[in-house]
Amino acid sequence: MTWVDEIKWTADGLVPAVAQDAADGRILMVAWMNREALQLTAETGSAVYWSRSRQKLWRKGEESGHRQIIKEIRLDCDNDVILLQIEQLGGIACHTGRRSCFYQRLEGDRWVAVEPVLKNPQDIYGKG
Amino acid sequence: MTWVDEIKWTADGLVPAVAQDAADGRILMVAWMNREALQLTAETGSAVYWSRSRQKLWRKGEESGHRQIIKEIRLDCDNDVILLQIEQLGGIACHTGRRSCFYQRLEGDRWVAVEPVLKNPQDIYGKG
Repeated sequence: MTWVDEIKWTADGLVPAVAQDAADGRILMVAWMNREALQLTAETGSAVYWSRSRQKLWRKGEESGHRQIIKEIRLDCDNDVILLQIEQLGGIACHTGRRSCFYQRLEGDRWVAVEPVLKNPQDIYGKG
Repeated sequence: MTWVDEIKWTADGLVPAVAQDAADGRILMVAWMNREALQLTAETGSAVYWSRSRQKLWRKGEESGHRQIIKEIRLDCDNDVILLQIEQLGGIACHTGRRSCFYQRLEGDRWVAVEPVLKNPQDIYGKG
């Protein structure tokens, strides 16, 4: 029984992972990991997720350069959520070019985008 | 189409919600909400989740008094994760009596509990 075996995976073999900026506590994103992604994250010291839409490993920053350097890995009381303390290279976690994926704030009865786009996604990922 | 309709619910009609202490950015817990829980959270200003184990609404703090006062509700870029900025009454979010549910830290190849129990769970929930 290894530390990975202690995770309570979903029926699909996944666990949600919250990425928090270790410097100032900002929550940058939530994504999913399978067993291999979590092991690679721990071994390489750089966040690896499981892309549910593409059904493959997603080495965060592989295209954008916006890698997430792991400072600490935590697990919650139910063993079913991971918390990563990270350093966000490039200062951008979101594919929209914003620092955090959580840029929509509920104001009254509507969601309002309240965070600036720091870099054009076309410039992050290329136009091809 | 209301703001709740914009959420991308899972097949089970749920969305994960991260609760973050608005004062210092500490991540306290991650739980699930259904449509009614999210609406009640917004309407009452106090966090309501959906308990998957008990299959019913879970008004956080109902037994313990450890309610979570909502300061802000955010949504991520994929519209499938909620982030709550909260004030944690009683300073304890976890059913183990710790401040945060994320008290297990990966050290080498094992999980180590690194946060103190602030209150005996029996004293929080009663012994009956």
